[in-house]
Amino acid sequence: MQKYILILSVFSFYLYADSALLQQALKEKLRPIPSSKTQLLHLVDDPENPLTQAKIDLGKMLYFDPRLSKSNLISCNTCHNLAMGGVDGVGAAVGHRWQPNPQHLHSPTVYNAAFYIFQFWDGRSLHLSDQAKGPLQAPFEMGSTPDEIEQKLASIEGYRTYFDAAFGMDTPITFENTAQAIAAFEKTLVTRSRFDDFLEGNIDALTQKEKEGLRVFLKKRCSNCHQDVAMGGMMKYFVMKKFTYKDIGTFSGNANNLVKVPTLRNITKTAPYFHNGSVWDLKEAVLEMARIQLKLKITDEEAQSIVDFLHALEGDIPQMSYPMLPR
Amino acid sequence: MQKYILILSVFSFYLYADSALLQQALKEKLRPIPSSKTQLLHLVDDPENPLTQAKIDLGKMLYFDPRLSKSNLISCNTCHNLAMGGVDGVGAAVGHRWQPNPQHLHSPTVYNAAFYIFQFWDGRSLHLSDQAKGPLQAPFEMGSTPDEIEQKLASIEGYRTYFDAAFGMDTPITFENTAQAIAAFEKTLVTRSRFDDFLEGNIDALTQKEKEGLRVFLKKRCSNCHQDVAMGGMMKYFVMKKFTYKDIGTFSGNANNLVKVPTLRNITKTAPYFHNGSVWDLKEAVLEMARIQLKLKITDEEAQSIVDFLHALEGDIPQMSYPMLPR
Repeated sequence: MQKYILILSVFSFYLYADSALLQQALKEKLRPIPSSKTQLLHLVDDPENPLTQAKIDLGKMLYFDPRLSKSNLISCNTCHNLAMGGVDGVGAAVGHRWQPNPQHLHSPTVYNAAFYIFQFWDGRSLHLSDQAKGPLQAPFEMGSTPDEIEQKLASIEGYRTYFDAAFGMDTPITFENTAQAIAAFEKTLVTRSRFDDFLEGNIDALTQKEKEGLRVFLKKRCSNCHQDVAMGGMMKYFVMKKFTYKDIGTFSGNANNLVKVPTLRNITKTAPYFHNGSVWDLKEAVLEMARIQLKLKITDEEAQSIVDFLHALEGDIPQMSYPMLPR
Repeated sequence: MQKYILILSVFSFYLYADSALLQQALKEKLRPIPSSKTQLLHLVDDPENPLTQAKIDLGKMLYFDPRLSKSNLISCNTCHNLAMGGVDGVGAAVGHRWQPNPQHLHSPTVYNAAFYIFQFWDGRSLHLSDQAKGPLQAPFEMGSTPDEIEQKLASIEGYRTYFDAAFGMDTPITFENTAQAIAAFEKTLVTRSRFDDFLEGNIDALTQKEKEGLRVFLKKRCSNCHQDVAMGGMMKYFVMKKFTYKDIGTFSGNANNLVKVPTLRNITKTAPYFHNGSVWDLKEAVLEMARIQLKLKITDEEAQSIVDFLHALEGDIPQMSYPMLPR
């Protein structure tokens, strides 16, 4: 009898501990990607560019269309490759005429960018549609111009019906509409994970190892910056000036040397890390962040435990058909 | 009564004429992509690299994986883009470090290449798996080496199960297996069209305009070279030395200046034309081929009629899910 009481007590303790962990995670502003489609739509939709299936379908084609670039060879998907965790998997992005990004910036993942309040590494853009206009025009990325894009798309007869369906009959094919359609598609690129099940109350969704990692993650205050739905993208800036780690370097892109906190979702699939892609090993990246951002010396075991937890953020990548582009 | 007999006669005449056209097309060695899966498999399968679903699934991932290139940025799909008719839509192919093809060669479509008996523009390769090894290693294409590819693939843990399923447990991940899997996937990239329905006996599958075009096509002997299932890829070489058209140029790639006859399937979707991608307008390409290859002066109307027929070769592109690559 005593044995059973003991077992029950231990079990209750774990149950209590897990519930407390969940409560703590919610208190620290970690929020799930909602399982409810309505709630999800509420999170990502924008009254100024309302999501419609026609816009999403068009946006998907445009996202994969290399003709949006000056060379006709680089699409959004070239650097934000949906088959590769939404990234290119190299250090500095490589664009038009094989130019590396002049600030040595790494292509961030497009998955779950819909949840960010700031886009780009310096957070200079507030909307995905505004963000999309950047790489399209950057001379070292897709190298195009609004005029070129409008003229090229208008010359591809097959696009007309898709633009009509998305924006109304005979609406001109504009750079703005192009960017809005791409943004609409990108809002579908969200990846629910086991951690979302946990945050919605299923405390069995994480393994014990992952829960242990979450405890360390919260205890070390990683969620100070990696917060909200994307666990990133919400903090306007994070100070880079004080960085001394040789490989991380300063971010000369803006006067303040400030960088947006990146998402931790699918982080196990999106190496290399940091704005300049300078670190390939996730545990090393965790150790560096603790040292530089939190001024903490954490142990190797603690860093590994956090990495264990990060695996619970591997999401379900939306399955999609490869589009056929009008020619 | 006489009126009805007249109508019936006219109708019979057309029926007779269409059947005769079909017979003539078959006589001229135009063969359909079979509607029967068994017959199709018989056409494309190779006893030395038998098609299996596991091999096709693996091959699809490898086809889309940019890590097979030295830079990790260029996949088979970069130049043979399945969303763009299986081509890149530019003149000379652009590869590793933005190098244009040194012979100014244009990326040919991968769709229906499974039916060719010769691969590459100079026809130097007899199997798709052998062909696949070319661009992977060419310094101006993907720029990799067999060793690099084997080491890289072996280092991507997630690929192990796919290679096991395709080639048997613990079979080493070799360059050869990689090429065979890619070839297996490419054998699924066939596009049946209305012309195949016609060749299988449905004489109503083509419009009158297309039938008229087919008549011109046969009369002008286009099928001397553009023959068999792919309407191309079967003639070993076709003499380029005699070319005088300024834009076509000679093909310095081989001593004999000989070029493989390309497929006409989906030709309306795969501009620019010729081995060097020098002509963008399909009617102009038809006129040039008549002049240079057939030593015929054909009229503008005849060329347009042939173009009308070529639209009947627009095939059903296989729908496929975009793969998720192990990272």
